[in-house]
Amino acid sequence: VHEQEIIERFFRAGPARHDVRVGIGDDAAVLVPPAGHELIVTTDTLVCGRHFLADAPAGSVGHKSLAANLSDLAAMGAEPAHACLALTIPGPDAAWLQGFADGFFALAARHEVALIGGNLARGPLSITVQAMGYAPQGAALLRGGARPGDRIFVTGALGDAALGLACLQGRRELSSEILTHCIGRLQEPTPRVEAGVALRGIASAALDISDGLAQDLGRLLSASGAGATVAVERLPLSPQFRQAMAGPDDYRFALAGGDDYELLFTADRGRLPEIARLGDRCGGITQIGHIETEPGLRLELDGARFPLDRSGYDHFSE
Amino acid sequence: VHEQEIIERFFRAGPARHDVRVGIGDDAAVLVPPAGHELIVTTDTLVCGRHFLADAPAGSVGHKSLAANLSDLAAMGAEPAHACLALTIPGPDAAWLQGFADGFFALAARHEVALIGGNLARGPLSITVQAMGYAPQGAALLRGGARPGDRIFVTGALGDAALGLACLQGRRELSSEILTHCIGRLQEPTPRVEAGVALRGIASAALDISDGLAQDLGRLLSASGAGATVAVERLPLSPQFRQAMAGPDDYRFALAGGDDYELLFTADRGRLPEIARLGDRCGGITQIGHIETEPGLRLELDGARFPLDRSGYDHFSE
Repeated sequence: VHEQEIIERFFRAGPARHDVRVGIGDDAAVLVPPAGHELIVTTDTLVCGRHFLADAPAGSVGHKSLAANLSDLAAMGAEPAHACLALTIPGPDAAWLQGFADGFFALAARHEVALIGGNLARGPLSITVQAMGYAPQGAALLRGGARPGDRIFVTGALGDAALGLACLQGRRELSSEILTHCIGRLQEPTPRVEAGVALRGIASAALDISDGLAQDLGRLLSASGAGATVAVERLPLSPQFRQAMAGPDDYRFALAGGDDYELLFTADRGRLPEIARLGDRCGGITQIGHIETEPGLRLELDGARFPLDRSGYDHFSE
Repeated sequence: VHEQEIIERFFRAGPARHDVRVGIGDDAAVLVPPAGHELIVTTDTLVCGRHFLADAPAGSVGHKSLAANLSDLAAMGAEPAHACLALTIPGPDAAWLQGFADGFFALAARHEVALIGGNLARGPLSITVQAMGYAPQGAALLRGGARPGDRIFVTGALGDAALGLACLQGRRELSSEILTHCIGRLQEPTPRVEAGVALRGIASAALDISDGLAQDLGRLLSASGAGATVAVERLPLSPQFRQAMAGPDDYRFALAGGDDYELLFTADRGRLPEIARLGDRCGGITQIGHIETEPGLRLELDGARFPLDRSGYDHFSE
């Protein structure tokens, strides 16, 4: 089996776009960026056994490899446009490749993302996707814009993915119904693309939560030169998570779990009505705290300090 | 050791560029593409033990991971501008990381390439770089423009890298002086950036030779719907290669060896004087054959058919 055959058979798919003059098939792709826009570029790698389990369905791996990148674009307020896929596989397993491609292209189609190029290599299973998108000149959401008094918000719900992973790894028991929900959130996260684009001009700072709320909020705070207090009891949790909750210690899944792919952002409190309307449209947005002048992150549960020994997930050091 | 520390220590380097509004450190980079230009995008993966030997110097791995991408941009006639680096390493080896970064950034500085983002993961050693560059609207060099009567050219010299690899793998003996030359060409190829940019408006079709002349020329021919005859005795060979040559069979290193990273292009014969001047400036350009209407690639050595059983290197299937 040759590289070329695999590309033709599995990866000549997905949306076409007017801003792609040359796609897959030459030495490089040729894009025609629209005037008045900035190009937003991100890249993310998934390594088998580290970022996904070896027995994860191929479709979920395809989905997640693109979703992680679209989540980064969403956190910048960018409309996704293109992706390059560097796929390293141990060998040409047609069923796995078809599943992977199906998962990848289903998500790509949902967001009109064109696959414009890539690389296929033989080696230990690993996927690097680079995604590109557009935002109007100067409109991209950065991490460093939070100001004292701003409110802190998150989209969707936190902790499901980490709870599901804990169950898969035997660290936690879950009912099969709850496990199914959590595994869905772990393996097929929903990038908050619509919310990210809608937050342009509203959010003062934003990033996506991939390493746990506490660690990612810490990044936003240090980029902004500010501190924050978060009310842990306000963290958005899914009904399934609440049902599985054994006690306040389980807030740690939502604070330091990883793999949430929700947006964390700040905004002036005057924007609350707009944000509430946006939340109704985009799967929920919850206010969880506020930005302060004093540096550092203070976690409170019903007004008392909530201790957190492990600040977040570090894919590299773990 | 955390991902963040490694990035700060080793990868906050290289040229800054005016068209990068936000570089490393946010969810994604923000680029401001110049008006009237197209964006050229390519990606390439190097897997340890497959695309480089496990004991290759770290600096050469850093160099080659960027060089392979710059070679693709050169083949499109693009000026390189940015790179993203997705680096997967078994663990934080400071000496290796410093060597890698030194090799990467030395080449980046030579071509004013800004590292705008990336990913650091733990896993089997592998490097995916995505590079981006610019070409004026409509000026990019594609594979499909060769016309019957066009002449075929290559930059530099062919076969050194494959000959060096054969020696490293014990399939061939070389003097240490010749081996040193060949290993340099294998491990630290020179992307033909200046030649690629200069060929805009001159070449009718172009690509870079990474899988061997015969296979890559085959790609150009099928994209162009044409055939070609190549005079094997005209293939550009280094003095070191000629000295090591045991017989005409060794032309196979230059025809089907891989890892040359030279440019292969076609042009109307009326452009010969310009191309000769360009060759004087850019390390040599050699005319090796011509494009014909009849499909297929015909190899001739001193006018007689030259048989080639193995058409080129396929990193995936080998």
